[in-house]
Amino acid sequence: MTAEIISVGTELLLGNILNTNAQYLSRELAALGITVRRQSTIGDNHDRLADFVNEAKQRCDLLVFTGGLGPTADDLTKETVAACFGDTLTFDSDEWQKIVDFFTRTGRETTPNNRKQAMVPVRGHKVVNHHGTAPGAWFEQDGHCAVLMPGVPHEMKAMWEESVRPLLLARQSCALHSLTLRVLGGESNLEYRVRPLLENLNPTAAIYCKTGECEIRITARAQNDTEAQTMCRAYAKKFYDLLGDAVYDEDVAGLEETVVHTLRSNGLTIATAESCTGGMIAQRLTNVSGASEVFGYGFVTYWEQAKAKLVGVDPAVIAQYNVVSAPVAAQMALGAAKAAGADIAVSVTGLAGPGGGDAVRPVGTVYLGAARGDKVYVKKLFVSRPDRALIRARAAQTALEMALRLAQGKTPAGTQVLTESAQHDPAALTALDETLRAE
Amino acid sequence: MTAEIISVGTELLLGNILNTNAQYLSRELAALGITVRRQSTIGDNHDRLADFVNEAKQRCDLLVFTGGLGPTADDLTKETVAACFGDTLTFDSDEWQKIVDFFTRTGRETTPNNRKQAMVPVRGHKVVNHHGTAPGAWFEQDGHCAVLMPGVPHEMKAMWEESVRPLLLARQSCALHSLTLRVLGGESNLEYRVRPLLENLNPTAAIYCKTGECEIRITARAQNDTEAQTMCRAYAKKFYDLLGDAVYDEDVAGLEETVVHTLRSNGLTIATAESCTGGMIAQRLTNVSGASEVFGYGFVTYWEQAKAKLVGVDPAVIAQYNVVSAPVAAQMALGAAKAAGADIAVSVTGLAGPGGGDAVRPVGTVYLGAARGDKVYVKKLFVSRPDRALIRARAAQTALEMALRLAQGKTPAGTQVLTESAQHDPAALTALDETLRAE
Repeated sequence: MTAEIISVGTELLLGNILNTNAQYLSRELAALGITVRRQSTIGDNHDRLADFVNEAKQRCDLLVFTGGLGPTADDLTKETVAACFGDTLTFDSDEWQKIVDFFTRTGRETTPNNRKQAMVPVRGHKVVNHHGTAPGAWFEQDGHCAVLMPGVPHEMKAMWEESVRPLLLARQSCALHSLTLRVLGGESNLEYRVRPLLENLNPTAAIYCKTGECEIRITARAQNDTEAQTMCRAYAKKFYDLLGDAVYDEDVAGLEETVVHTLRSNGLTIATAESCTGGMIAQRLTNVSGASEVFGYGFVTYWEQAKAKLVGVDPAVIAQYNVVSAPVAAQMALGAAKAAGADIAVSVTGLAGPGGGDAVRPVGTVYLGAARGDKVYVKKLFVSRPDRALIRARAAQTALEMALRLAQGKTPAGTQVLTESAQHDPAALTALDETLRAE
Repeated sequence: MTAEIISVGTELLLGNILNTNAQYLSRELAALGITVRRQSTIGDNHDRLADFVNEAKQRCDLLVFTGGLGPTADDLTKETVAACFGDTLTFDSDEWQKIVDFFTRTGRETTPNNRKQAMVPVRGHKVVNHHGTAPGAWFEQDGHCAVLMPGVPHEMKAMWEESVRPLLLARQSCALHSLTLRVLGGESNLEYRVRPLLENLNPTAAIYCKTGECEIRITARAQNDTEAQTMCRAYAKKFYDLLGDAVYDEDVAGLEETVVHTLRSNGLTIATAESCTGGMIAQRLTNVSGASEVFGYGFVTYWEQAKAKLVGVDPAVIAQYNVVSAPVAAQMALGAAKAAGADIAVSVTGLAGPGGGDAVRPVGTVYLGAARGDKVYVKKLFVSRPDRALIRARAAQTALEMALRLAQGKTPAGTQVLTESAQHDPAALTALDETLRAE
């Protein structure tokens, strides 16, 4: 089955809004085994729209529209597509009542134009919108189908999940199961390693790369749900075998969610001491609903005085080793754990630029600490692209990765260890500093 | 002049990546006075691509391509478009040398396929890529043009700004000037007020809405740059007259940038005490390069104990008024300013959900404080959509808005004031609590 995605709206052609619908629907259609041949964004002009629909209808089996269902005179999509599919529209009093109720609830009055939104297909059928006023529509002619959904992303997604996706699944008389693996690691290297596993037809596997991690989505089609699940699980094992514990979780929104859950299930708490990330780690942890069970204190120690005052970094250590150094990262993490009374603490001190930096410590140099019990693990990160946002994001991601490993009772990879009792010992600090600077 | 934007790449059709290029180019083309009729995303199939290009060429004056310039056998865009524009390609030894140098630098060897990337138009011309290996291309036939740029967003944007945009400007023999106003306020209300100003042909004005603020981009075309600037400035005045100091700045990346600059130019410092935003305000402030001149200390006081320990909130006040209350927000801001020795401090305490909340304090209830000198200004915010990310983002935005007003020496809108000496006075705290709870 082949499809095209058509987004209707002048505001998209002007670049006023970013088209996230097309990506969402492309993923969803791919998971259904439907090949997306083209994504198009077009305006509301009647003639151009009709020409487009007539051509596209010949090219593929399914046209998926978003947008153009509004009440203004410009919104011609439903009428135009109906005509192209040999259908007409009729007034639906139930839909009209929903619209009237909505306007009444929000203290406004309907206009004659709003009646347009209550028009539904005669030969095809409406698609109920549980999250907005405009119903969707389904048209069909000679084996070619068109479905029209709203342009507002949350309305579109809800209609897709509640009505359109089940409809397409039923047509294909199959069950579908998906699983998303979250994997730590950089893009190109990871993509290269898993490439052979991405070529499969069923289950399919697709990779989506983000900062410092990737998402691998596995989708299986089968006769029934149990079989699809089993296939998914078996295919996931291939990735686990290949990637080991770089696969950090399944079906979570991000690393912070896994960190919070792992801490919680181990009865642990965490604190943060952030310099160049400036609150980003705390912010990510508190994105997770329920974070308050494991996180109570975060220190943003942007100034040297703040590092001393809030998390007990020794000013002499800053003076001797530089504020961007392994000894400072170590003392920050140990100090944050102590000040917060937390089981684990992570710390970051680095140069996010664009200013600052020299030959020894170029912009992009970051030191991270992760303390648990009487040990602190310290790591150096270097981000070669001098991009402030990227450096900060990579640093926050690395800190969360270290936190995860400590919460799992593992040693964070690529770190040097210092014991708490040696945190003021000049020889130990100098050794730590030199080892990590040389990396 | 009319244009179409064509993004080439299977990874887009699979939904593996979000197409941000199309939005960027749509905005840029609109600013040049070029009407974008269609955005399309297509795969690398030779026949389908050729059919598409031949049709699109008839529909408009300019085809703007991104992607498909890679070295693999799939990347057919350049050859295909050349043929559709009656052109051929020739080997360019300078471009080849650049590619060889790049591979040598990164410790890899070129493959025969890489030679494809060094092929450039014979009748048209290459477009130099200063930020990657693949040169762009320009083709022209019978008054129709096509330009090919890389798909990687930062390479594409650089090539657009350095080469393609100037080329299009020169062809239109005009100068262009743009100005972006940043405006505080919610979407629908603001859009309604400025709508009549968005219909103009020259200068054009477009609105882009974000969380808690909008961006209005004004672009003027004129004979020369001075004239274009003058026109922009005159048109901007209409928005200032309409919106007053809701227009908080011009040509900045966000409210945090204006806050940092305003603090710096007034020689002021700021501290933060965050509960439900969990570090988001600090993170936004430290996004701004140079933030260290004004920001040194941030407190993420997620637990009640942390509010007491780090910023001196009285536990009895929490017990009496609830942790999500105006008295707590007031004490957090005053305490943060004191603990950090900062001139200004902002605080947030609220319910971001999804859990918690009751009839008195539903999810979405947030109290904010902003302290300067011996006064603290307190405000209640209510976000009706129970969306954790949205509630946090709106709260952070409101806190930054309050910080800006204090830095400007103004009173933040919609606030109640409490003096520092009254921060432990039961009558004053109760009055504050009751006044704001009733809002």
